[in-house]
Amino acid sequence: MKEIDIKGLFLGPKSENGDLFKKILTDAINEHLYWRKDFHPEDEPIVSLYEKNQENFRLTEDRIIQVVDQICAKLKVTSMPWHSPRYLGHMNADILMPAMLGYIAAMLYNPNNVAYEASTATSPMELEVGKDFAALMGYDTGKAWGHICTDGSVANLEAIWYARNLTSIPFAVKELRPKLVEGKSDWQLANLTVDEILDLSAKVKDICDEVRDRSVRGTGIVQKQLGKWIVPQTKHYSWVKAGEIIGIGLDNVISVQVDDQYRMDVDVLEKTIMDLAEKEIPILGVVAVVGTTEEGAVDHVDRIVALRKKMEQRGVSFYLHIDAAYGGYARSIFLDEKGDFLPYSDLKRQLHEKGVINQDDIEWPPEEVYSAFKAIEESDSVTIDPHKMGYIPYAAGGITIRDRRMVDAISFFAAYVFEKGTESPALLGSYILEGSKAGATAAGVWAAHQVLPLNITGYGRLIGASIEGAKRFYSHIQMNRVLDIDGTKVRMETLTRPDFNMVDFAFNVEGNKDLDKMNELNLNLYNLSSYVSGPVFKKDFITSHTEFTYDDYGDAPVNMVKRLGIERAEWDRVHSLRLMRACVLTPYFMVDKVVEHYWETYLDSMKRKLAEVLSK
Amino acid sequence: MKEIDIKGLFLGPKSENGDLFKKILTDAINEHLYWRKDFHPEDEPIVSLYEKNQENFRLTEDRIIQVVDQICAKLKVTSMPWHSPRYLGHMNADILMPAMLGYIAAMLYNPNNVAYEASTATSPMELEVGKDFAALMGYDTGKAWGHICTDGSVANLEAIWYARNLTSIPFAVKELRPKLVEGKSDWQLANLTVDEILDLSAKVKDICDEVRDRSVRGTGIVQKQLGKWIVPQTKHYSWVKAGEIIGIGLDNVISVQVDDQYRMDVDVLEKTIMDLAEKEIPILGVVAVVGTTEEGAVDHVDRIVALRKKMEQRGVSFYLHIDAAYGGYARSIFLDEKGDFLPYSDLKRQLHEKGVINQDDIEWPPEEVYSAFKAIEESDSVTIDPHKMGYIPYAAGGITIRDRRMVDAISFFAAYVFEKGTESPALLGSYILEGSKAGATAAGVWAAHQVLPLNITGYGRLIGASIEGAKRFYSHIQMNRVLDIDGTKVRMETLTRPDFNMVDFAFNVEGNKDLDKMNELNLNLYNLSSYVSGPVFKKDFITSHTEFTYDDYGDAPVNMVKRLGIERAEWDRVHSLRLMRACVLTPYFMVDKVVEHYWETYLDSMKRKLAEVLSK
Repeated sequence: MKEIDIKGLFLGPKSENGDLFKKILTDAINEHLYWRKDFHPEDEPIVSLYEKNQENFRLTEDRIIQVVDQICAKLKVTSMPWHSPRYLGHMNADILMPAMLGYIAAMLYNPNNVAYEASTATSPMELEVGKDFAALMGYDTGKAWGHICTDGSVANLEAIWYARNLTSIPFAVKELRPKLVEGKSDWQLANLTVDEILDLSAKVKDICDEVRDRSVRGTGIVQKQLGKWIVPQTKHYSWVKAGEIIGIGLDNVISVQVDDQYRMDVDVLEKTIMDLAEKEIPILGVVAVVGTTEEGAVDHVDRIVALRKKMEQRGVSFYLHIDAAYGGYARSIFLDEKGDFLPYSDLKRQLHEKGVINQDDIEWPPEEVYSAFKAIEESDSVTIDPHKMGYIPYAAGGITIRDRRMVDAISFFAAYVFEKGTESPALLGSYILEGSKAGATAAGVWAAHQVLPLNITGYGRLIGASIEGAKRFYSHIQMNRVLDIDGTKVRMETLTRPDFNMVDFAFNVEGNKDLDKMNELNLNLYNLSSYVSGPVFKKDFITSHTEFTYDDYGDAPVNMVKRLGIERAEWDRVHSLRLMRACVLTPYFMVDKVVEHYWETYLDSMKRKLAEVLSK
Repeated sequence: MKEIDIKGLFLGPKSENGDLFKKILTDAINEHLYWRKDFHPEDEPIVSLYEKNQENFRLTEDRIIQVVDQICAKLKVTSMPWHSPRYLGHMNADILMPAMLGYIAAMLYNPNNVAYEASTATSPMELEVGKDFAALMGYDTGKAWGHICTDGSVANLEAIWYARNLTSIPFAVKELRPKLVEGKSDWQLANLTVDEILDLSAKVKDICDEVRDRSVRGTGIVQKQLGKWIVPQTKHYSWVKAGEIIGIGLDNVISVQVDDQYRMDVDVLEKTIMDLAEKEIPILGVVAVVGTTEEGAVDHVDRIVALRKKMEQRGVSFYLHIDAAYGGYARSIFLDEKGDFLPYSDLKRQLHEKGVINQDDIEWPPEEVYSAFKAIEESDSVTIDPHKMGYIPYAAGGITIRDRRMVDAISFFAAYVFEKGTESPALLGSYILEGSKAGATAAGVWAAHQVLPLNITGYGRLIGASIEGAKRFYSHIQMNRVLDIDGTKVRMETLTRPDFNMVDFAFNVEGNKDLDKMNELNLNLYNLSSYVSGPVFKKDFITSHTEFTYDDYGDAPVNMVKRLGIERAEWDRVHSLRLMRACVLTPYFMVDKVVEHYWETYLDSMKRKLAEVLSK
């Protein structure tokens, strides 16, 4: 079967594809250089060969060479070896060659996607990428919209900006056209669905300026109307920033307890909402996370969607945002080549048939993860980061919204953005949070999406390889639960059966009942497995770590602590758990020989480090 | 004298320096490719030559080539020729080779400056660049701080975030430690200076969590404490967005009338502040613009600083932010090689001696522009965009603050960021607005600053060349005020004597008294001088345009309208003025031969277009 070979997409751990990269890049640069010359060939060159041989010119060349050399040297001394399967730390791996090449090719022309006239080539690419995001999330691309952001933090801030502004519209309408909301109490106005708000907005188009001026946009925040923004305990810290910046304050950002799989506990969420509703405190919005930062957990989006439907029967509604900054691209796995979400019964067969998951005994996804990904299509907006599971160079985040009429709630212009029949409005900067932005980013993401479509045989196979790698790493840990370190037995436990491609784990000396000691062991191990300074190449493996405290996670870590042989009372005393955290983004762990080599090297290295730590 | 030759810094209008660019880039890529191989040489390659000859691998290569070719083709068809002196439109020109090379070299390693451990090479570069920003603005680098943002809109939002959070701190202290502010009324608390707020914060370090929770960060916005955010009419639209996002609302963003030089009228500002003070409405902050987006005007920062001092005598203070997104880098011109601000008496001589301005009869800067740049050092924060006058590829904005203790007012962590003696805190993302960000941007900006220091002989000479170009363009217009177009006399007028490197101008047929007709003429001319679709190379010249309406500018345009021979009454009737807008960023208009060639070609082209428009 003719299909993309994932191993041909990257420079490679040993620069295997370096020649191709250089060839394509050289071509792209030459194209650009001749393009410059071809613009009005009658204009003479400004710099002559004679001038280029003058001392000051030579000095200038020399200065540039020296500075770039310095940069290369600095980069070589300390950069993280994200290209190597020895790096199992943060959400980093090698990045896609087409994305790098697309970026560089476009950077030569330096387009600015803030305005169409400054980016005639790359603005349409961003529009296509936005549609790709929408289609990926199951939104109706005829109604939805999306764009690239600088990162997920900014996308999250934009999402809460949407929610805040939309929520305040019905109150502005009440002031200006009370008849349109006649008979509705403030509580009812605060609980309109997004669709109801958009339909209401459509009825006041003739006074859109006044509506804007009487909404939160004009008046500033009127606290009581807005209500609470609800996130899981596993939220990224950008949610705290966003709630603060947007002006609702941390008092109005509520964290909901997660279960021992680190998924938001939907029963607790329901109770939280019920309690608030009882006091007539509105819910500004709920965030479900698809791929939590520290655990890779996937919240029960389907159950949250069901909860919203149930609550709407009782007159309580809220904006639903999915923070899929990390997990978003993985929805590709569930889409067939036509973009349809595959039935669960069919999916597992196809995953193996199409080489998304190669090892027979890997069972993924569990039904709850499948259902969660499916239900994303019922949300109002989604954050998705190309620079995470899109294998795109930094900085490239993204957001997509279900209904593009929402844009009018944040647009600088009073006029309705998408009304004029144009899909490519002239001034993108006037209806997103950012202003000037690199068109090169759009070219990079667009290139990646062209080479790897957002479906099962495109990105699905790449991300499948990563999940398979995580599962294999997880299985190896399971098969090596007790290590013998010079006679001392050390237990290795994983935090969860991973929902995605992240494996958290910790070590404890068998018989040790002291949580502080266990935490110290893991911290010491981490210090030997992380990079601070000096030559990077001395590191055998590089991983990241995390710490779960009671303040952030409640009692979610108790289960893990117990499995490591430590009593609940110790948790209650220490209220902190340190873990290793391995994001397995490398796409090469679907090759038996590769995974075996690196696992054995890894285990050897861990044993040596354990011996070193224990001998102290 | 040994010095940088500006013409050696860019690829060049005719790709004159293409060979050097390719040579350095190839070296940087090879360095990277061998670095990959050198990380644990004992690991075998994952892709073999045999595998690379398989059909699927070949297909993958082919797919990448095709997609990058498509991108190159799209870019070539429509991209703006920013490299050519025929482009005199937006704030765009060729970009610095060292910045591009630094960016690409770093992108291969893909560092993420959100956290030090993900960017051990490029985080220190960002720190240095931040110091460069601070030094450039005359801040004490021992106390100040700065960082790269994705763009000026985000930097501006961060500035208002600082102002908002700082302003609310005294009220939190009043609740928690009333003795510390004993005897002070709410009005007095709302009028503490930034220094007083920071000193007060220092006294409540032991309860910094509680202070945060009782300030706007915790409670959300309490409107009356915050007051008004004051901007000039010439503000960038990102200020409207920022005021809206931050939750104070457009009602609390006040635009102050500009004078006929398009500088904020400081008398009007004073009156505005006095009126508000009389009603005990606080001033959250004032923005002075250094390089307005549409005119390149420089606000009287010195007079605003003086006004603040005067007001402080009366118990009224406010945060002062400088929006120097556009003009910021130009402060280099005023700094000697030691970083000292040159005395005015000395400056003009040095400008000519050091080749910053080459043509003898060019008189720049006027004293008011000089004084404005000087006074930036007395502001609280400054927005500066490397991707504008830094000649850096998109996206690269920046911000610098006078006192780094301010960071604690927005930092996610309660702990004091700069207290531990570290200059390079571990998690940048936790105390700026953005999260993940390209380390490559820092490498690009750092490279540019290394090659061109931020002083008179570094960036000063580059930006001087641009200002000289604008002045020469302006002079040529002055010398050709009346054009004969097949017997019809057409007058050409410039909006102002430019403060910086932007020239706005308009045409009118002599004798025409109809403002609508004049606007139509200029719009038609613009349409012939701008790019919408089709082959770019058919365009002789490309410019941008702008429209001044009464709603945005009040009566500031009256002077220009009159000079074009149109009565005041017409302005009162039409309330709109259309202009051509030429940002002269090209660095080559300091060469006589070059500027003569392009001016003659430009004038010919304009005459032909005028003839075409007038014949219809």
